[in-house]
Amino acid sequence: MGAMKKLINDASAVVTDALRGVELAHRGRQRVDHEHKLILRAEPTRPGKVGIVSGGGTGHEPLHGGFVGRGMLDAACCGEVFTSPVPDQVMAATTAVDAGAGVLHIVKNYTGDVLNFEMAAELAGEEGVAVQAVVTDDDVAVQDSLYTAGRRGVGLTVLLEKIVGAAAEEGRDLDALAALGRAVNDRGRSMGVALTSCTVPQVGSPTFELSDDELELGIGIHGEPGRERRPMASARDIAAMLVEPILADRDFTADPAIVLLNGMGATPLLELYLMYGEVGPLLEKAGVRAARVLVGNYITSLDMAGCSLTVLAADDDMLSLWDAPVDTPALRWGA
Amino acid sequence: MGAMKKLINDASAVVTDALRGVELAHRGRQRVDHEHKLILRAEPTRPGKVGIVSGGGTGHEPLHGGFVGRGMLDAACCGEVFTSPVPDQVMAATTAVDAGAGVLHIVKNYTGDVLNFEMAAELAGEEGVAVQAVVTDDDVAVQDSLYTAGRRGVGLTVLLEKIVGAAAEEGRDLDALAALGRAVNDRGRSMGVALTSCTVPQVGSPTFELSDDELELGIGIHGEPGRERRPMASARDIAAMLVEPILADRDFTADPAIVLLNGMGATPLLELYLMYGEVGPLLEKAGVRAARVLVGNYITSLDMAGCSLTVLAADDDMLSLWDAPVDTPALRWGA
Repeated sequence: MGAMKKLINDASAVVTDALRGVELAHRGRQRVDHEHKLILRAEPTRPGKVGIVSGGGTGHEPLHGGFVGRGMLDAACCGEVFTSPVPDQVMAATTAVDAGAGVLHIVKNYTGDVLNFEMAAELAGEEGVAVQAVVTDDDVAVQDSLYTAGRRGVGLTVLLEKIVGAAAEEGRDLDALAALGRAVNDRGRSMGVALTSCTVPQVGSPTFELSDDELELGIGIHGEPGRERRPMASARDIAAMLVEPILADRDFTADPAIVLLNGMGATPLLELYLMYGEVGPLLEKAGVRAARVLVGNYITSLDMAGCSLTVLAADDDMLSLWDAPVDTPALRWGA
Repeated sequence: MGAMKKLINDASAVVTDALRGVELAHRGRQRVDHEHKLILRAEPTRPGKVGIVSGGGTGHEPLHGGFVGRGMLDAACCGEVFTSPVPDQVMAATTAVDAGAGVLHIVKNYTGDVLNFEMAAELAGEEGVAVQAVVTDDDVAVQDSLYTAGRRGVGLTVLLEKIVGAAAEEGRDLDALAALGRAVNDRGRSMGVALTSCTVPQVGSPTFELSDDELELGIGIHGEPGRERRPMASARDIAAMLVEPILADRDFTADPAIVLLNGMGATPLLELYLMYGEVGPLLEKAGVRAARVLVGNYITSLDMAGCSLTVLAADDDMLSLWDAPVDTPALRWGA
């Protein structure tokens, strides 16, 4: 086992083994397609409802599988750890959830994800399924990075899946949902920080080295490099490092904001609340009204310590879709 | 900062600082009494409803503050990190939530907690508030330990707070709630395992040393010693180490079970689901029917890696109270 202490059996079977647990824990609410490594709603898509499919590499739980359920996703495709799902998986999810009204793909902007979802959309198109895609690229940290051309898709994906999922439940059509998704993406920004690396099970050693007195600002959710290394700092100073680049990138004073303060996987909730005690006043001072606040682990990076901040300038429609009932393992209210 | 990398400002102000974040994040749903370090429901207790108060040392979030809300707790007393709340705090919470029908204290079995809640109950009694207490002692790992005479109270506390909270919402009286709480405690058992120590902010170094190839079986939620050290093992073997002592301590085959697979704070959800993929089949094989399953971080130990398993042999009443609406930051459904 060495330095990698994880609750796993075989490092090469982590996704397969975890899906068995998902199936047993959420019986009656979710079902698992083990062949294609998909998490689906227990019940088939309501005729006429657009199917919402997301997915990506595993290791970011509860994203995406924890968001499968009424009011949010219809299916999540689970790639290997930090590895894009293959087109076959996405294709299987797409055809499984199509109920005649087409399927929307929600894709984080990583080169492999974008390509594989595109290939799956083409294959599904050949079988007569209408597919559109929304790509999230909310991370203000870096322009291009290890796995991405352009900005990376991170925490905003959670908010977008909730809002678009609620709109699909209302019966909006594929064009409207794609436009809504793009509007959410346009209006949201994120920034993250890591205090430690993460360790990919099949690698067995930390993805990067970070000394005890350093932090990595603008970290990617796979441990890919951020903006810069800085000396370890107080929560107060780290809050400023997250808030400032977000507010510098877009005006958030004109709309009510939905704010997500997200843990990277190994950071306790106590610290996340403490961080929000610093982030909240900074937003307020800058004239940003946090209308809805979510604090917790929603898009993680295996066992990385750290957090990310996402701010969405919501319009009234987005706010009411955010408040709409949702019934998934990881986000549940009004249902 | 040295080896302790945490999102904090001043190690001695962690609780104060985190409560500021709780207040900002849950405005309108919870309120914070900063003087007494209490988290309370935003709205006063409904006349005639028994007030439900819990609390303990901080560092176990979301327990207890995350469970304050409709259908669960009326107030949580936040002690310093891993330190019992003082009688004054508990007294303030008790009088704040009394609406004429008395107050039930839910107390984990640690010597300081039990004493301080007892003193507060006496003080409240002198002011005419009827108080009863339920003490949880579900941990099968050890008989006595560093901070406890008898068994420790751990994960079952989460299930008990939900069930008793729902019964209070229904309007049951103080005697009935105390009896229900004791019945839940009688029917539940827990066992935990740590892969790493935790680090108390004010101490700054790990509470105990655990080498890379060892685990601590039967760990306490403050890092106090468990049953024994064992060589690091697979998830499959660890699952057996958790399931066996629980099933050896009580018969769970006669009733539907509510099962909590809980993370200790730094263990990613992916690993918890993987663990449930091992625990679930072991329970099934032993004739235990998992009627409800909860997987996630509900009673944590700061930044400890590891997990605990709790099994409750629920009767029909407990099961229906479990399913009743709850509206708290950490547990929310039907509302």
